[in-house]
Amino acid sequence: MRPDRSFFNRLADAAKAETLPRFRSGLSVVNKQQGGFDPVTEGDQAAEAVIRALIEAEFPEHGILGEEHEDVGTDRDHVWVIDPIDGTRAFISGVPVWGTLIGFQEKGRSVMGLMDQPFTGERYFADGERSWYSGPDGERQIRTRDCGGLDNAILFSTSPHLFKGPEVARFQAVQDRVKLFRYGIDCYAYALLAAGHVDLVIETVLKPYDVGALIPLIEQAGGVVTTWDGGRPEGGGSIIAAGSAALHAEALAMLNSN
Amino acid sequence: MRPDRSFFNRLADAAKAETLPRFRSGLSVVNKQQGGFDPVTEGDQAAEAVIRALIEAEFPEHGILGEEHEDVGTDRDHVWVIDPIDGTRAFISGVPVWGTLIGFQEKGRSVMGLMDQPFTGERYFADGERSWYSGPDGERQIRTRDCGGLDNAILFSTSPHLFKGPEVARFQAVQDRVKLFRYGIDCYAYALLAAGHVDLVIETVLKPYDVGALIPLIEQAGGVVTTWDGGRPEGGGSIIAAGSAALHAEALAMLNSN
Repeated sequence: MRPDRSFFNRLADAAKAETLPRFRSGLSVVNKQQGGFDPVTEGDQAAEAVIRALIEAEFPEHGILGEEHEDVGTDRDHVWVIDPIDGTRAFISGVPVWGTLIGFQEKGRSVMGLMDQPFTGERYFADGERSWYSGPDGERQIRTRDCGGLDNAILFSTSPHLFKGPEVARFQAVQDRVKLFRYGIDCYAYALLAAGHVDLVIETVLKPYDVGALIPLIEQAGGVVTTWDGGRPEGGGSIIAAGSAALHAEALAMLNSN
Repeated sequence: MRPDRSFFNRLADAAKAETLPRFRSGLSVVNKQQGGFDPVTEGDQAAEAVIRALIEAEFPEHGILGEEHEDVGTDRDHVWVIDPIDGTRAFISGVPVWGTLIGFQEKGRSVMGLMDQPFTGERYFADGERSWYSGPDGERQIRTRDCGGLDNAILFSTSPHLFKGPEVARFQAVQDRVKLFRYGIDCYAYALLAAGHVDLVIETVLKPYDVGALIPLIEQAGGVVTTWDGGRPEGGGSIIAAGSAALHAEALAMLNSN
């Protein structure tokens, strides 16, 4: 049986109680070098601990794959995939585009997911069939948009510096074609894509917990998300997400050309 | 006589009524090419019009320099400097790091300023002596921080692609030295600097209305903001803002080395 929306909300609320008070907390980045814990590491670990405790109490038979603590039963039929603070650089620099990612997989496939941004009050949720937004301006079902082609697309990527080897030129070729590109907002970019505000996210070196929650958000909003070779994205790596199948195909062809 | 805080708030509230409903409004970027107005242009023009109308009613003797409409009396003792939507690329792509900028100058010097982010509910205000923050987590006076030196600094810049000629290598030299750098958040970066969350913002090709409101926010929070040659920043151009005088001097030396 799948968890329900209220359970996802309980997880996100518990995580928020650990992350939000540490955001912009004023602790200098210098502290980290003096041997103390930094706010983002503290928040990351504390948030994952409370999420895990709630899951283990409610669904002891489920596996858990998280960023901060040891994996548990990741070969089970049901596995939770958690990144308590995705976008640590945004968190550290005070920009509210980091997120708490909570995904749920059945037999290795991501089927439900939540992305929460506690400062803005935005929460994006895929319930297994549809994707939803709630935030300061209300609550609604969300759909990706069809921008009509690469020339009209808005592209996001965390940083051009992450691409290596042949990826550099291939990403650059796509970037040169789009209407607008922007850097630096991690999971928030996928949420905006699911909600139909942007069209394309292309990234590399992602971990499974970076995408587990985002895959159903995009798919259940009508978008397409795969690896750069067109395969299932649950394993992470080089990832492309698009608002429509046509745009996905157009960008994928460029990423795989010589 | 200087305007008071409540008048600045009236201006920001009036602008918000024009900008926020158009943010993430779902109008496709395609519409612009079909000859219609796009949401950001509409919002920009409508917000500046309401700000100007309020100023002209209350302070008809003041000049106004804005992005969207014709300048009025910019040689007068008191001049308002307005950018109704700074960060149009953020606005277009749904990221709430754009802002409404309203600055107030006396004899060519920026002495008061406001930056408003309507979606997150953040408002940064310099009252002539001190800088203030209000937002979802309350209201407080803000101060820049002293990170201790470039090696510990967090640097923001809108995009590395904006630098031209010798600026490219000079900016790169600074970027290579800092602890963390990020791209893409326009005026929001200066607000974070004023509030002590980040340490350095380095940009180029800024217009006077891009910086007019931000100069007092930074200076009255304890920071330093100048052109790359160390002069007053009111005219725009290549700008550097730092959380402390020491960091400003350290970065400025690198930007001006051979």
